Amino acid sequence: MLRLRPFAAARCLPAGPRLGPLCLVGNRGSFARSWPPAGGRGPLSRQVRAAAGGERLPVLKTPKGTRDHAPAQAALRERLLGAVVSCFKRHGAAAIDTPALELRDTLVGKYGEGAKLIYELQDQGGELLALRYDLTVPFARYLAMNKITKMKRYHVAKVYRRDNPATTRGRYREFYQCDFDIAGQFDPMIPDAECLKIVHEILSDLQLGDFVIKVNDRRILNGVFAVCGVPESKFIPACCTVDKLDKVPWEEVRSEMVGEKGLSPEAADRIGEYVQLHGGLELIERLLQDPKLSQNKVAKEGLGDMKLLFEYLTLFGITGKISFDLSLARGLDYYTGVIFEAVLLQQENEHVEEAVSVGSVAGGGRYDGLVGMFDAKGRKVPCVGVSIGIERIFSILEQRLEASGEKLRTTETQVLVVTPQKHLLAARMKLISELWDAGIKAEMLYKKDPKLLKQLQYCEDTGIPLAAIVGEQELADGVVKLRDVATRKEVDIPREKLIDEIRRRLEP
Amino acid sequence: MLRLRPFAAARCLPAGPRLGPLCLVGNRGSFARSWPPAGGRGPLSRQVRAAAGGERLPVLKTPKGTRDHAPAQAALRERLLGAVVSCFKRHGAAAIDTPALELRDTLVGKYGEGAKLIYELQDQGGELLALRYDLTVPFARYLAMNKITKMKRYHVAKVYRRDNPATTRGRYREFYQCDFDIAGQFDPMIPDAECLKIVHEILSDLQLGDFVIKVNDRRILNGVFAVCGVPESKFIPACCTVDKLDKVPWEEVRSEMVGEKGLSPEAADRIGEYVQLHGGLELIERLLQDPKLSQNKVAKEGLGDMKLLFEYLTLFGITGKISFDLSLARGLDYYTGVIFEAVLLQQENEHVEEAVSVGSVAGGGRYDGLVGMFDAKGRKVPCVGVSIGIERIFSILEQRLEASGEKLRTTETQVLVVTPQKHLLAARMKLISELWDAGIKAEMLYKKDPKLLKQLQYCEDTGIPLAAIVGEQELADGVVKLRDVATRKEVDIPREKLIDEIRRRLEP
Repeated sequence: MLRLRPFAAARCLPAGPRLGPLCLVGNRGSFARSWPPAGGRGPLSRQVRAAAGGERLPVLKTPKGTRDHAPAQAALRERLLGAVVSCFKRHGAAAIDTPALELRDTLVGKYGEGAKLIYELQDQGGELLALRYDLTVPFARYLAMNKITKMKRYHVAKVYRRDNPATTRGRYREFYQCDFDIAGQFDPMIPDAECLKIVHEILSDLQLGDFVIKVNDRRILNGVFAVCGVPESKFIPACCTVDKLDKVPWEEVRSEMVGEKGLSPEAADRIGEYVQLHGGLELIERLLQDPKLSQNKVAKEGLGDMKLLFEYLTLFGITGKISFDLSLARGLDYYTGVIFEAVLLQQENEHVEEAVSVGSVAGGGRYDGLVGMFDAKGRKVPCVGVSIGIERIFSILEQRLEASGEKLRTTETQVLVVTPQKHLLAARMKLISELWDAGIKAEMLYKKDPKLLKQLQYCEDTGIPLAAIVGEQELADGVVKLRDVATRKEVDIPREKLIDEIRRRLEP
Repeated sequence: MLRLRPFAAARCLPAGPRLGPLCLVGNRGSFARSWPPAGGRGPLSRQVRAAAGGERLPVLKTPKGTRDHAPAQAALRERLLGAVVSCFKRHGAAAIDTPALELRDTLVGKYGEGAKLIYELQDQGGELLALRYDLTVPFARYLAMNKITKMKRYHVAKVYRRDNPATTRGRYREFYQCDFDIAGQFDPMIPDAECLKIVHEILSDLQLGDFVIKVNDRRILNGVFAVCGVPESKFIPACCTVDKLDKVPWEEVRSEMVGEKGLSPEAADRIGEYVQLHGGLELIERLLQDPKLSQNKVAKEGLGDMKLLFEYLTLFGITGKISFDLSLARGLDYYTGVIFEAVLLQQENEHVEEAVSVGSVAGGGRYDGLVGMFDAKGRKVPCVGVSIGIERIFSILEQRLEASGEKLRTTETQVLVVTPQKHLLAARMKLISELWDAGIKAEMLYKKDPKLLKQLQYCEDTGIPLAAIVGEQELADGVVKLRDVATRKEVDIPREKLIDEIRRRLEP
């Protein structure tokens, strides 16, 4: 496993997508904020409707539970998403994209209690639309619509939920999901094991601290409910209640089962004996011998597959982070087999004063019935997938970055084209044009006659490593003075060799 | 200027984001579609609500004017966006992101006639929301909200318009915009010239065929209207009408001016003499001497700046593709100075039977008043920017790709891990785990005992260049047989040297 320093989420792979180095600069955002405010440029905008003239000004904010990404945040997010996507590609997934809008009917009846959180669009004539709630239902719709029975895909996109925002914990109403799913009829547990391997790789690479991946199976839970005397109609409500065990003690879960969900106290007690168990292979073996569970066909299937899964995870060398946990239930209706959820055990945030509480950072499972819900003949396409909780991870990285005082570079500019005297704008423009045409990332200040010091200061503020200085003497000599911003060393380079020299200097 | 082959929109820059090579494979999508359809996997999904049992099935489609991207389309789009973003980064822009949702009030009064195309969300309690219509108004809101007076940013994201879709021409209701904008008070025309340079670079790199970038200035148009006797209140309607000159003949535009817009026939005729002019520096000089226009302060300012702009474009070496065109008006209300629009002159689509009609592929201009509309004191932040018409370009590339019969690789997998005999799943899983951990992109088939031929066929179908074969003999000898899929040459590699050998083989 390649290790990354914190934040250095991108890594160089032999032939994959690469991100620029994560250079740190002394003063982020100086370009954006530190210069004096600008007024209007003369009487040029008469035809724009008057704003200050008595018209009501809109409130300056983004909608509740949403936020802008400033350049530093956008740069951090690009690196984080890059690391996740690079893992998905490493596992051979293809990208797809679906619209953020879906027909309301497509989303109806897929999310259980989540349905009330769906954003609906106003009826403006035409179809009734809603914003997607996740990427899984659109994927199932896509498979059914195109009659695809086999596919390994990833999808990184924003989804929308009218949830109660908790922005410090990374819970937003508009947020990214990063999903990897394998659809198709295969030999049991092989794709399921790969999904867990992916979670393990991503969480290890990002160095978020110690973590555990809890694993369970809806069939085992259903078997538990059955042998404890719960009627099948109450399996899903019982599941939802068990799912709260990671947040509240058993007594509260028990009283919700008996009170709200109408289970008998005896059934609840019997359930309690099972769902508080967690362990590894030995627990699976024990439950396979359990006098009641072993008599339940569904539970036995689930336990048999769980044993197979642990075999595969041993071959992948990741059982150290896996816990078979009977309290894991997952909220969504559509799971049918293996389910899993990764949680961080402890924050590596010695720099942060108050601890960041984040909860689960990845989750997923098998949903063999969802595609069939879109098929006129109910034809099923078995699926298993994983969703990386990118917002929670992002909020950890963001707070860690802030606490460290380090600054991410927000641009990738390699060369600032600089003139040391007045009346040399034309020389600057000619030179920068040559650099751009050679594929070199270059900037110049948008002033006719900027001061040399201001130009060099701009390099230091924004982390530009090289300055190409062209003054009267350099023009006369047919050279460009190339300055290393860090060491302040300057060398005259013949104009025709400049591009090669810059490329050489920028080699990793 | 680096040249790209068609579709090879990504290029290797010294230290920027890189995309994998554009390998062509014999049979795209075979993984997704060609294998036999799968049924359900046993009785595992009883708890999923019955779909086929009498419940109404949703219509299987995406909303009108939207579409899914299958892997081949997603791969093409990734490369296209990569080329555009790489140009924006080359010019030193930082990324920002804003929500797809904005408060309705933020969008009100910014788009003129476009306002009726805004998607509004249902009032579900709380704020009244709408989907963004473009990226420019959110950018202005972002600048005003954060009191930023200087910024060079790019933003690539989806926007939403309830427009009449024309999908073959790349007009959708959900579509990407790729915007680059420079905000701040600078010396005249320097940032404006850079925006045009960017359009020139992107259209050249993508090799879409010959193009021209039309340039005009709202101040020149307003001056023309003024000297032709149009009252100031009718400047914007007159602008909108002139804007149609690229689609309909002057007579129709004239009759709309006189009929719908209520201009006098004499005014319309006088306007006609000006707005049918186009040319270069010599036209600017001529108009600067024009007895009427030269008396108009605003027009004179506009013409003076246009002359300066042409000077700068000469230094950038791109005037060959620039046309000063007085008929260019641009639809949006918020422009205040230079405006421009790039159009393809002729499709390079000898393979395509019916010609693709696409219209403009990039546009933009100066909007010095928009940010002030969000500021309580009306403080202005001058801005100039460009938007790349990525959907139209995408539809050209997509149709060209389809006509050529070439297939894009949709995955980046480098190695397929293969076993030639039965009962070797464990060996396959151990080896693939090692490859993943070393950062190598690897796949295996999700079958316990796949046939050797099926595995090798999968490599050829999906373009995987290497197969790592581990059989009983290889296990006994401590080697892996590395097969070059193209040449079918196989070599035994000692297990401990495998990773290095694979990396060596995959070097560009």
